[in-house]
Amino acid sequence: MHSLALSGDPERITAIGNVGDDIDFLGLRVSPDLDTVLYTLAGLLDEERGWGVRDETYSALAMADLLGEETWFTLGDRDIGLHLARARRLAAGEPLSAVMPTLGARLGVRVRILPATNDRLSTIVLTDDGELPFQTWFVRRHHEDEVRGVRFDGAERARPAPGVIEAIVAAGAVVIAPSNPFVSIAPILAVPGIREALRDAPGHKVAVSPLVGGRAFRGPLAAMMRTLGYRTDSVGIGRLYADVVDTLVLDRADAQLVPAVEALGLRAAVCDTVMVDPSRRAAIGRRLLEEVLG
Amino acid sequence: MHSLALSGDPERITAIGNVGDDIDFLGLRVSPDLDTVLYTLAGLLDEERGWGVRDETYSALAMADLLGEETWFTLGDRDIGLHLARARRLAAGEPLSAVMPTLGARLGVRVRILPATNDRLSTIVLTDDGELPFQTWFVRRHHEDEVRGVRFDGAERARPAPGVIEAIVAAGAVVIAPSNPFVSIAPILAVPGIREALRDAPGHKVAVSPLVGGRAFRGPLAAMMRTLGYRTDSVGIGRLYADVVDTLVLDRADAQLVPAVEALGLRAAVCDTVMVDPSRRAAIGRRLLEEVLG
Repeated sequence: MHSLALSGDPERITAIGNVGDDIDFLGLRVSPDLDTVLYTLAGLLDEERGWGVRDETYSALAMADLLGEETWFTLGDRDIGLHLARARRLAAGEPLSAVMPTLGARLGVRVRILPATNDRLSTIVLTDDGELPFQTWFVRRHHEDEVRGVRFDGAERARPAPGVIEAIVAAGAVVIAPSNPFVSIAPILAVPGIREALRDAPGHKVAVSPLVGGRAFRGPLAAMMRTLGYRTDSVGIGRLYADVVDTLVLDRADAQLVPAVEALGLRAAVCDTVMVDPSRRAAIGRRLLEEVLG
Repeated sequence: MHSLALSGDPERITAIGNVGDDIDFLGLRVSPDLDTVLYTLAGLLDEERGWGVRDETYSALAMADLLGEETWFTLGDRDIGLHLARARRLAAGEPLSAVMPTLGARLGVRVRILPATNDRLSTIVLTDDGELPFQTWFVRRHHEDEVRGVRFDGAERARPAPGVIEAIVAAGAVVIAPSNPFVSIAPILAVPGIREALRDAPGHKVAVSPLVGGRAFRGPLAAMMRTLGYRTDSVGIGRLYADVVDTLVLDRADAQLVPAVEALGLRAAVCDTVMVDPSRRAAIGRRLLEEVLG
């Protein structure tokens, strides 16, 4: 996402984000996935952690803790400022799909950030200890419980947010970011109409594999793929997306997987995909677009 | 309040606070008067300003400002942590009169802090520019508009919070703090039943004058008394409270006003009332109690 925004014309990019990990915490609606995209594009992300705002303070949470509130979900003060602004706008009747672009514009973000849906859709993780709300599994229990399944509460009643289907249909290219397919991408595709729109969309449809050498850059994806019965490599990723994309982007380190990916009926494009060095991001994004569009 | 808590047995003290300056700001219910009492008794008050929490940070407000929110009412991060905790409890159905003692207990406050009412009662200031909500007049417009009158929106429907009438009736002494009579004390007495309970209460009933030498220690009281047609000294204060108290405490600097106070039918007690030096507060509180109870 970040690399594409750097490499192209950001006004022409729509970022569609997952709301399945949204959580009501300290009475605030927190949208961690949308906010990570927002903070990244605004240059505010705490790059070391991969979430939250940099140069953050934690005074509010410390006081709430003193007052007996649950504080297992870390909210920094700057982050809380954003949640308060969003909550105030939501309470005034603005839908999330209107609020996010407004917040983005205020932070100088030129990419349009949209939630997949304005409706409540909650990712629920099935574990040996029963069903857990996503953040309970991920943050509170440190994603230590093995994942037996994932479902999206409210998905059947959810409607795509205004602009989402239109963006998919009109796009020259739709890129699925190298995120967790089960808990970051699937809750987007679970909104009735989005998977169908993507399948039928006329543009290039590309997924970037989040696994390099069978490992995710961050997070529990490899373990999830194992327990859910997938190959823990980019071929497994290809199988997950084979019905909605035409191209899978693999990292150079996985070039030997190209034949297996092609056997799934996908085009395989090989690029650098790991973007540890911020100064190289724009170049990686440009190269990726050339590779998949060319 | 603080000095009494220091001088007596705090478990036996109930502090009844004004909710007329409460404001919904950034989507949070803020109760500045109750919170000033809470922070004072918890030893957390920013003594220099006379409000808010000491060692405060302002990260959330800065972010909200960046996002286009109104930020004329200063909320620090630690303060926001308290408002979030309170809002969460209120949303869960706890009345304010239950929430405040809980928050107090968490902060080690042994005095019971109660709002005059759990209902909405809003102080409205009448100015030459029309009616202004209290905080708009006080903070946003720096109390520069002359006050032509004050009314309490919602007062006629407000009920005393559980425990308030009981505390007044059972008290050996009721002390009206040296606060602004028009905007801090009147909104308490405006709750139907409270003024009557105070008038009929069997204990000592004492008001401490907030004016010394015709000036308030802080805030716009002297100017308000002038425009509302009162003498701007402790005799004017005595007139305001003559129907509900039996004793008025004057500062030593105002000893010459004793005969005029007594002419109102009040007993006049002369004490040090200015508590600039924190180390002398307990002694002042003890002396005050001796003077008015003896």
